[in-house]
Amino acid sequence: MPKIVDHDQRRIELVDATWRIIARHGIEGATMREIALEAGFANGALKPYFPTKDDLITFAFGHVFNRTNQRIAGRSAGKAGLEALRAFCQEVLPLDEDRINEARIVIPFWQKALTDPAKAELHETSMNQWRAALQGHLREARDRGEVTAAVGEEDIVNQLMSMLLGAQIVAAMSPGEHLPAQLDAALDAYLTLLRPVPARGEVGENDA
Amino acid sequence: MPKIVDHDQRRIELVDATWRIIARHGIEGATMREIALEAGFANGALKPYFPTKDDLITFAFGHVFNRTNQRIAGRSAGKAGLEALRAFCQEVLPLDEDRINEARIVIPFWQKALTDPAKAELHETSMNQWRAALQGHLREARDRGEVTAAVGEEDIVNQLMSMLLGAQIVAAMSPGEHLPAQLDAALDAYLTLLRPVPARGEVGENDA
Repeated sequence: MPKIVDHDQRRIELVDATWRIIARHGIEGATMREIALEAGFANGALKPYFPTKDDLITFAFGHVFNRTNQRIAGRSAGKAGLEALRAFCQEVLPLDEDRINEARIVIPFWQKALTDPAKAELHETSMNQWRAALQGHLREARDRGEVTAAVGEEDIVNQLMSMLLGAQIVAAMSPGEHLPAQLDAALDAYLTLLRPVPARGEVGENDA
Repeated sequence: MPKIVDHDQRRIELVDATWRIIARHGIEGATMREIALEAGFANGALKPYFPTKDDLITFAFGHVFNRTNQRIAGRSAGKAGLEALRAFCQEVLPLDEDRINEARIVIPFWQKALTDPAKAELHETSMNQWRAALQGHLREARDRGEVTAAVGEEDIVNQLMSMLLGAQIVAAMSPGEHLPAQLDAALDAYLTLLRPVPARGEVGENDA
């Protein structure tokens, strides 16, 4: 019987190897030869999967996007409105080492997308999916009276999208020890801004 | 008399040429040879200014940072508190083609900084300067009663920093026609979230 090769699994192993190489040497240092070596492939064996490094980077971006969406689905199961919105954002934010490594894959993808229309389109499509999800949660939160800020939904979605993408830069550039806690706190504080302001008398320590 | 060469001016001409080349071909396509050609230099004449493309990218980032700070100084002159905060953010946001091109320089710099500690440090120092400026304006806005949101200053600064950096990605990836207006509207809406909520009776159209 011929050996059965799970090609999808092989692709993911390659992406994982790419990850480690990029984290170590940056994308320029990540030659196809090194990636093959790291993944335990013979030098030419990568070609059928990823003819060029560009193909690999595109696949890696898709892989990060799918992984994030799987985490979101897990975390937001059974949640609605503002809680679902919060779960979504928390899974996109780079709040642990694994996700900071994801940011390290996404930044080279962005750099490539600057001059590669196919990559830019993939980015646009992916981000539009996220925008739609955020919009859905936000609308639900409004309906439930959890969001009362006198600010349009589109503006809130734009703020969140910029914040989530910017956090990838912040985390990848300065992965300090307290950073995940800071990003998480900033998200919570932002959601507080959207919530109903308690009527006078309900506020505790801020009362004069 | 020997010809006097203004080396700082030459460096800026080179950066401007780099800009145009990167905008056209991306950073990988931008060879030192092409940059020299675009700037009207003989092929070897770049070396004394920028021994490597890496040096050039670092200089270009510094140049963008300084240009932005000059614009900020101009725009926020005579302004204080929330108005100064707004002017600051508007000058960092990629609200016109020139600033979208700046974003196209900054993204390759970020990508390089992922594995270049000197670049990462330059980024950190520059961003800390901005954080301090935002914090100063915010404190003043609090003192003047323009910001009353029950959210800590550090959280607001973190939100703004992520939003400003994320907007560079959004603009460079999808430079649509309406994007600058959307980014500007999202900023204004965010500042609205920080402002005092009008007492009941002061609100017009939202009253039942």
